[in-house]
Amino acid sequence: MANITKKVSWSSRGDESGGGERTPLLNGSEELSGEGGMFHIGRLSTVDLEEDMTSDEVTFSFLSILDYDNSENQLFLEEERRMSFLGFKCLEISRWVICGLIGFLTGLIACCIDIAVENLAGVKYYVVKQNIEKFTEVGGLSISLILWAVLNSAFVMVGAVIVAFFEPGAAGSGIPQIKCYLNGVKIPRVVRLKTLVVKVCGVICSVAGGLAVGKEGPMIHSGAVVAAGVSQGRSTSLKKDFKIFEYFRRDTEKRDFVSAGAAAGVSAAFGAPVGGVLFSLEEGASFWNQMLTWRIFFASMISTFTLNFFLSIYNNKPGDLSSPGLINFGRFESDSVAYNLYEIPLFIVMGAAGGLLGALFNILNYWLTIFRIRYVHRPCLQVMEAMLVAAVTATVSFAMIYFSNDCQPLGPDQSEDYPLQLFCADGEYNSMATAFFNTPERSVRSLFHNPPGSYNPLTLSLFTLTYFFLACWTYGLTVSAGVFIPSLLIGAAWGRLFGILLAAITPNGSVWAVPGKYALMGAAAQLGGIVRMTLSLTVITTVYTVLIIVIHLVVPQGLYDIHIKLQSVPFLHLEAPATSHWLTAREVMGAPVTCFNRIEKVGTIVDVLSNTSTNHNGFPVVVPVAASDDLGKICGLILRSQLIVLLKHKVFVELARSRLTQRKLQLKDFRDAYPRFPPIQSIHVSQDERECMMDLTEFMNPTPYTVPQETSLPRVFKLFRALGLRHLVVVDSENRVVGLVTRKDLARYHLGKHGLEEMQLAQT
Amino acid sequence: MANITKKVSWSSRGDESGGGERTPLLNGSEELSGEGGMFHIGRLSTVDLEEDMTSDEVTFSFLSILDYDNSENQLFLEEERRMSFLGFKCLEISRWVICGLIGFLTGLIACCIDIAVENLAGVKYYVVKQNIEKFTEVGGLSISLILWAVLNSAFVMVGAVIVAFFEPGAAGSGIPQIKCYLNGVKIPRVVRLKTLVVKVCGVICSVAGGLAVGKEGPMIHSGAVVAAGVSQGRSTSLKKDFKIFEYFRRDTEKRDFVSAGAAAGVSAAFGAPVGGVLFSLEEGASFWNQMLTWRIFFASMISTFTLNFFLSIYNNKPGDLSSPGLINFGRFESDSVAYNLYEIPLFIVMGAAGGLLGALFNILNYWLTIFRIRYVHRPCLQVMEAMLVAAVTATVSFAMIYFSNDCQPLGPDQSEDYPLQLFCADGEYNSMATAFFNTPERSVRSLFHNPPGSYNPLTLSLFTLTYFFLACWTYGLTVSAGVFIPSLLIGAAWGRLFGILLAAITPNGSVWAVPGKYALMGAAAQLGGIVRMTLSLTVITTVYTVLIIVIHLVVPQGLYDIHIKLQSVPFLHLEAPATSHWLTAREVMGAPVTCFNRIEKVGTIVDVLSNTSTNHNGFPVVVPVAASDDLGKICGLILRSQLIVLLKHKVFVELARSRLTQRKLQLKDFRDAYPRFPPIQSIHVSQDERECMMDLTEFMNPTPYTVPQETSLPRVFKLFRALGLRHLVVVDSENRVVGLVTRKDLARYHLGKHGLEEMQLAQT
Repeated sequence: MANITKKVSWSSRGDESGGGERTPLLNGSEELSGEGGMFHIGRLSTVDLEEDMTSDEVTFSFLSILDYDNSENQLFLEEERRMSFLGFKCLEISRWVICGLIGFLTGLIACCIDIAVENLAGVKYYVVKQNIEKFTEVGGLSISLILWAVLNSAFVMVGAVIVAFFEPGAAGSGIPQIKCYLNGVKIPRVVRLKTLVVKVCGVICSVAGGLAVGKEGPMIHSGAVVAAGVSQGRSTSLKKDFKIFEYFRRDTEKRDFVSAGAAAGVSAAFGAPVGGVLFSLEEGASFWNQMLTWRIFFASMISTFTLNFFLSIYNNKPGDLSSPGLINFGRFESDSVAYNLYEIPLFIVMGAAGGLLGALFNILNYWLTIFRIRYVHRPCLQVMEAMLVAAVTATVSFAMIYFSNDCQPLGPDQSEDYPLQLFCADGEYNSMATAFFNTPERSVRSLFHNPPGSYNPLTLSLFTLTYFFLACWTYGLTVSAGVFIPSLLIGAAWGRLFGILLAAITPNGSVWAVPGKYALMGAAAQLGGIVRMTLSLTVITTVYTVLIIVIHLVVPQGLYDIHIKLQSVPFLHLEAPATSHWLTAREVMGAPVTCFNRIEKVGTIVDVLSNTSTNHNGFPVVVPVAASDDLGKICGLILRSQLIVLLKHKVFVELARSRLTQRKLQLKDFRDAYPRFPPIQSIHVSQDERECMMDLTEFMNPTPYTVPQETSLPRVFKLFRALGLRHLVVVDSENRVVGLVTRKDLARYHLGKHGLEEMQLAQT
Repeated sequence: MANITKKVSWSSRGDESGGGERTPLLNGSEELSGEGGMFHIGRLSTVDLEEDMTSDEVTFSFLSILDYDNSENQLFLEEERRMSFLGFKCLEISRWVICGLIGFLTGLIACCIDIAVENLAGVKYYVVKQNIEKFTEVGGLSISLILWAVLNSAFVMVGAVIVAFFEPGAAGSGIPQIKCYLNGVKIPRVVRLKTLVVKVCGVICSVAGGLAVGKEGPMIHSGAVVAAGVSQGRSTSLKKDFKIFEYFRRDTEKRDFVSAGAAAGVSAAFGAPVGGVLFSLEEGASFWNQMLTWRIFFASMISTFTLNFFLSIYNNKPGDLSSPGLINFGRFESDSVAYNLYEIPLFIVMGAAGGLLGALFNILNYWLTIFRIRYVHRPCLQVMEAMLVAAVTATVSFAMIYFSNDCQPLGPDQSEDYPLQLFCADGEYNSMATAFFNTPERSVRSLFHNPPGSYNPLTLSLFTLTYFFLACWTYGLTVSAGVFIPSLLIGAAWGRLFGILLAAITPNGSVWAVPGKYALMGAAAQLGGIVRMTLSLTVITTVYTVLIIVIHLVVPQGLYDIHIKLQSVPFLHLEAPATSHWLTAREVMGAPVTCFNRIEKVGTIVDVLSNTSTNHNGFPVVVPVAASDDLGKICGLILRSQLIVLLKHKVFVELARSRLTQRKLQLKDFRDAYPRFPPIQSIHVSQDERECMMDLTEFMNPTPYTVPQETSLPRVFKLFRALGLRHLVVVDSENRVVGLVTRKDLARYHLGKHGLEEMQLAQT
């Protein structure tokens, strides 16, 4: 069995902190369907899960926490102080160059995906259409159905196989993973080159395979991966180091670039640079940095521009930059979307409907995800499920088209790409096929722009109903795919339906109730209801922000948040729970803390790092106060990764304090090891070396942020959130280390029905 | 002489901090033309200024610093802990209600301004037009000129008098003041009711008076004042306390509402809620708070909506909500603004031109402002200058129209409101008059939308040239007025000129070089070049963001920043200067620090607070370590304002520690005094009382943020900026107070030509 089972040791209190003996550590291991599931990996309270586990590989850190607070140790400060004004200017220019590159490459990738999908889907629909036309008259349409289903399944199989067997991290849209990354939690392999390749190929297959998915979410993930790669000036996977941009090899800088990459992805997907910037800020920015915002904006612009430029060449209209992004909904004439005061209550109703439907979608998908975690965790099963969904999608679509008798005249100006005549009269086409026999994006466009009367209400009702369940089933398959377009499509369908009904039942309704306008409204409402993304949507959909606020009030939690929660990620929300003022640092911190002395015995360090039951990541460095006192006075903070580099380079001092063996280490050594620091097990320390000492003074952060024990939780939270901390040292009035607060200590409190609750999963 | 001269004691190091004896204090007093000047009040290095000073009133805090870090003292924590989950929900609902109210009132004010300006200007232009038409044939147009100039001057006189004599704080656009407020520096009287009233009346007068000004900037200020008023549930000016929203009577909460108000103002001005949100974030948010962002967005939407609603009623089209904001540039057909690849270099050129012209505008205005500070600081002089500008504007406009011979046919679809025929043939109108004989907003609209050929190049060149200097002269007058619309108008004029030239000299140019498109581009470029506001503009002007980046690179400093700098405000930029890593907290902090004991003698406190040479605002509270040691161990931080309330309420303990005289104080007492805490001089403390003690334990913030002395400046800066601090205590390894860092300690470092420089003005 190829399952890769991992211990979720991060979910124990002791993982991040140097302390944490207070709570029991995780003993049972936990099934993570990481080998092929999508992102919905979590700790369930059932025991079923634990039964069929094998342990091929045990890694001790499934998730890692990013450190957005620079370790300002002596080496760092020396480098900064040595650097001239010109040096800083150069760095700043490199940042702009990198952002330009990120935008360019992201736009290029978007362009490739777009062209590939269009061609593959084009070939598929052409073949199926020919086949259907051939068999419509002579009978035997079941052959067409089989052809369609097989073609779909074949595409999806390829997409599912590469995801399930090669890179499970590429499953889904990738947006929850990027949200986590920007929040400070790193899902493993999320920004690897391999993930990017599988993601891009996967999304092409799944869209071409006719699944109810979109290609926009994966673009955001792709942009982020590009950014993480380009900004580091090397590829660890390809073992190629270009020896450039070495300064940016740390979490703080890398995060900035990743947020630019995600923005570039949004921008390429939606043709909305401002939307991209807002997305990045909404998800990532702990505080606003104007220059960073500008660079993000720059990357977004370059990305849209690149995409447009290459698409214009592809479309033989070189230089015509009017098509905005991957999604191109066409232009609304401003008159057709003008609204009136009395329509606002209608919009509010639609917002509420979108919110409720979104909540239904999310709860169904939640149950499905739990089912999948339990029973569909082998790669082959996952591939089979994906193929099944593809075949069912084709079958349902076919049946809907077959039984529909909504024939519409084939006008001269109509823009159907693959009009199916089927049993309609000559010069007519099947209207249901416009919705089903098409890529979802084109279907959305038809719903927005086709003239009133292009769809009859029954067609739209049936379409909404079936597509809703198909999309819900599809999200969470082991394929690379997004949920934006399906959401828009569902919403556009019921929105248009609503518009048609309004036009029919209200006096004068046919004048103001333009179906296309209501389709747009419905699409915005449904998208908002499902993903509950907020501010960036207001730019992406440009109109009718009133909807979004209604949705915000109706929907409790968005799809991405549900999936993040299922993964039990220690995600830090924006504020501490309101009623948490009675909690102080003393109550939330981990204690006692494992500390090191400024000059510490190598053996002790190796033992602490090797202790698999704790796996601490940050250690206060202390000066002993008195022999009898076991609490030392804080003088610094050192990270596991730094200690590992020190051990690897054998930066030891012999006991006699002659510095013979001490090698001078540079920041470069740390940067070279970033971000894949070797595990402690791979470092061999001889018995002699164990007796040596290590001088941590130069390498520790000498000015870690500290708080007194009496500090309230909201105050600690604010500090954590605003500075992007990973560890916060709690001291007493004598500056002695009494505890350590980590991200999990804060993330586990949330507001439940009965006031403040401690989340179970963080307790294990 | 009615001058109110103030000591700018904040510019001494010792003002904010409890320490600061290290640097000499300000002894000479400084002329602040606060009684009628606009915002450009500053310390100039010339001695001329100091000569004609009188000192009618000496206040010790000209600027005050806002504290965005809650003082989490026992009273506060007790209240928070007592509050139920429901209580927090109610608070949250109140916040939404307040934001709705802010939006509603801001929209209403915008509506009043719009209607008043339209009617007054309408009457004026009608009268002048009748007069001109009467005298065109019979001769004697000089009478028309005089009529026009007198009407203009009369309006402007009213506007200037109320500003100069009643509320100098209402001068200018108010945007620099709001930027400062959101940054944490409070300019006195900036959010008072009186300021609002004068601002609104003033802007109506100055726009109706034909000055080269706009009404958008003042809207932003108005929104902020509305927010500051509504959120506090009382009006200190009107002495009316509604006993609601008392929870929000502190800097942290108030700032949040003010940012919502500013956003509502932007939104009402430009019809762009997202632009409003971005403006608030760009200027104010030290870190992103999602719920706050939503409330800001809500306020913005309500504001636009209210404005639209009432305007639709005014325009007799009730319910038609299609006009977006105060500025209504009309709709661009999407085809007319579509652009092509080869136009991008042209846009870059225009961006650079806008940037250069903006820089020229700014430098001229800077010199003018310095001149005004020196020689035009009496209210009567200021009123006279404003009237002079009004008369000159009318004269220049008249001359331009008179000598122009650009006659255009009076088409059936043309939208001139006051077409002047003058010496044109029947059925024609004077094209120069379209630009000059109109409110600036309508002129912009004509430049954007009039068909090609409506203006000849000479007209546009002359117009650009004259309007540029008029606008530059006008900004900084003692009237309430903004610079947005003049910037747009200048840019639209030269942009259209550029478009016309392109159409003339390039092959096929008349097809793609639509003059309206280039007018739009020019307007965006010029606005960006002058104010150098950034992200929010991308939404407000919606198009051609490439421009904005070019401008960003070309223009060194925006007009608002120049005026903020002239005022020597301790404005905290977003990041510490790049090369400041070699500075540590020890070097920047003020020391020695005036500290209080936990239980302190009343006499000592009164003496320290009364010490006019220091005027400290925050005091560390310490526990003595040893008798011989003069440094105490930190145990809290108390603010001047808190001490004043304690003294006022006589919260004393007699020496014998019998708590007979100790009154139990509540948070309410602090809130009632907020924000206008009485000066220490107004509090009488008897000789007996001086011998009493005060127990500060309950009232001090027991967990102030502290840093070790070795902390680097960027690290201190980040903490300050991210948490919105006012004081940061610097401690040694024993937790003893060794210094205090305040905003000014950080604001005085900036990057100059020779690396890091210390600003002179912060040293005094």
